[in-house]
Amino acid sequence: MKSIIVAALLACCTTVQAADLDIAEIRSFHVGGRQVTLQGLPVTEVPFSPGSVPFRVDPNGDYQTGQMYVQSVVLARPRARYPLLLWHGGGLTGVSWETTPDGRPGFQMFFLRAGHSVYVSDSAERGRSSFSRSPEIYKTSPLFRTGNEAWSLFRIGPDGSYTTDPASRTAFTNTQFPIEAFSQFGRQTVPRWLDSDPMIQAAYDELVQKVCPCVIMTHSQGGLYGFQAALRAPDKVKALISLEPGTPPNPKLVTNTLKGVPFLIVWGDNIDKSTYWTKKIPPISDYRDALVEAGAVVDWIDLPKQGIMGNSHMVMMDRNSDRVADLIQDWMVRQNLMQ
Amino acid sequence: MKSIIVAALLACCTTVQAADLDIAEIRSFHVGGRQVTLQGLPVTEVPFSPGSVPFRVDPNGDYQTGQMYVQSVVLARPRARYPLLLWHGGGLTGVSWETTPDGRPGFQMFFLRAGHSVYVSDSAERGRSSFSRSPEIYKTSPLFRTGNEAWSLFRIGPDGSYTTDPASRTAFTNTQFPIEAFSQFGRQTVPRWLDSDPMIQAAYDELVQKVCPCVIMTHSQGGLYGFQAALRAPDKVKALISLEPGTPPNPKLVTNTLKGVPFLIVWGDNIDKSTYWTKKIPPISDYRDALVEAGAVVDWIDLPKQGIMGNSHMVMMDRNSDRVADLIQDWMVRQNLMQ
Repeated sequence: MKSIIVAALLACCTTVQAADLDIAEIRSFHVGGRQVTLQGLPVTEVPFSPGSVPFRVDPNGDYQTGQMYVQSVVLARPRARYPLLLWHGGGLTGVSWETTPDGRPGFQMFFLRAGHSVYVSDSAERGRSSFSRSPEIYKTSPLFRTGNEAWSLFRIGPDGSYTTDPASRTAFTNTQFPIEAFSQFGRQTVPRWLDSDPMIQAAYDELVQKVCPCVIMTHSQGGLYGFQAALRAPDKVKALISLEPGTPPNPKLVTNTLKGVPFLIVWGDNIDKSTYWTKKIPPISDYRDALVEAGAVVDWIDLPKQGIMGNSHMVMMDRNSDRVADLIQDWMVRQNLMQ
Repeated sequence: MKSIIVAALLACCTTVQAADLDIAEIRSFHVGGRQVTLQGLPVTEVPFSPGSVPFRVDPNGDYQTGQMYVQSVVLARPRARYPLLLWHGGGLTGVSWETTPDGRPGFQMFFLRAGHSVYVSDSAERGRSSFSRSPEIYKTSPLFRTGNEAWSLFRIGPDGSYTTDPASRTAFTNTQFPIEAFSQFGRQTVPRWLDSDPMIQAAYDELVQKVCPCVIMTHSQGGLYGFQAALRAPDKVKALISLEPGTPPNPKLVTNTLKGVPFLIVWGDNIDKSTYWTKKIPPISDYRDALVEAGAVVDWIDLPKQGIMGNSHMVMMDRNSDRVADLIQDWMVRQNLMQ
């Protein structure tokens, strides 16, 4: 009997490898948006594929616009108190969190393994959230980012150091970005529009109302949406982690409703070598001061000051992404965000 | 000792609920595409967000174009012989497979639970695959689908039966589509371009070379890409399941390299009430005949002839989606595609 039980125990437990994830459900949905009806546009006949039966295309009718795509991976037995929402930066989508460009597991997998159910979204207008006709619904044209711009804006190399020939590019000597995978990273780039902040924020606010209480982790442009979400739903946002936030809200908007809410702001390396990012720090610093004044718990981490050198703006993709994630997970433990 | 082992056994095995999924890894990547360099375009200065530091936008430089986004969910212990690739239809993305519009688990979850590792992609130009500047890279403008068109094209209701007011719409009396969730479905709509078939096919062909041998399931426009992928890599495509395929390749392209390859073609209901779909059947039927002639194993299922009534074009979203998935899974078992 004992040997049967031992055999059953071994058979059972070899099916629970430490490395596997026990998932209750993977699902997706769209939040936010509204219906718009267009009228008076010309009707055409087009084949959907070459040689296909022509189809009458009447653009007059109802469109959904402003919605946001969200994919959730829910653990069977989460060890975190709240789900973790990952909000990407400008010109990108939720793909930022999924896998590093050189093929290592991304922050999505790291935090799933650390015990968090994870929600990854694409900002309204980007990726699976879709965009709308212009000029009838969207009033402006999209902006497309070049590899040249990404290379310096994301602090992989100094301003002006990008060249089309990868062999001639100059990265920061200490860069942690996997530069051999830069074109794979470039494939993640999506267009953005410059007048869409209110639409994007509205969808994020609706997501918070739908799935929170939660912890939110933002990157870059997503920082603004996260700071604003915390202002609008201080009871629902149990912690906010801002990786290299781009632009803060007006500090005057901060009130003591944020008292006790933990904030973590994380910065990579080589900021002093970037004209753009050097200008970005003071407004975020002022916003930090307003949060502290209001009684929030704010931690500000300059990775180089902790001896973690060479991180680009894309910290979740850098070679040491697991080390940065470990540091964030440790912070979450200290903030009592794990069960 | 015995009681300790029994306690350990119970503690261990209550962590393996039948309903949970044991996942080795969730990851994503982009395949295909190429780099394009643009020159001679005007430079502008714009703030990324209102009030943000203006940023110099130089559109001259390198862009990635034509790439395709793929997300894989790999089971720790798959029971299928090959991974299952899910290729969506026109004007949509991989979201089609993730969850039904009324919130039930989609085909992705069904086939994961049935023992398949699943790869969901967004056709190049759509969703997380991104699109490119026009007229410099893309030569044409995108086509945006109205709810009006989707309602009849996807055979939820007869031609001309859509109205903006949901209460006044007339669906087919036997429809299985969850019409109360039609606006949630509309939020999944993305624009498409009409001259992009070769670009999309190239990315799918590269995916097949990267991750197959595999089984491919296509929907609607994806049918063409699946049929062509099987023609180009008959050794890699171990079976092809075409849900309501839109347009076939030229039947003259079929050769006996496809001998023994199993094909399943599935049709919903109310096709005789749709001018568009009535015209779509004969070319697919001719292609089926060419496959049979070449020695392929072809099953053609009209769901209503099996007593399964009311399916729309969006069979994976219909209320009876699990029943249709069961039928497909049974077919895969019979084709010896499970271990």
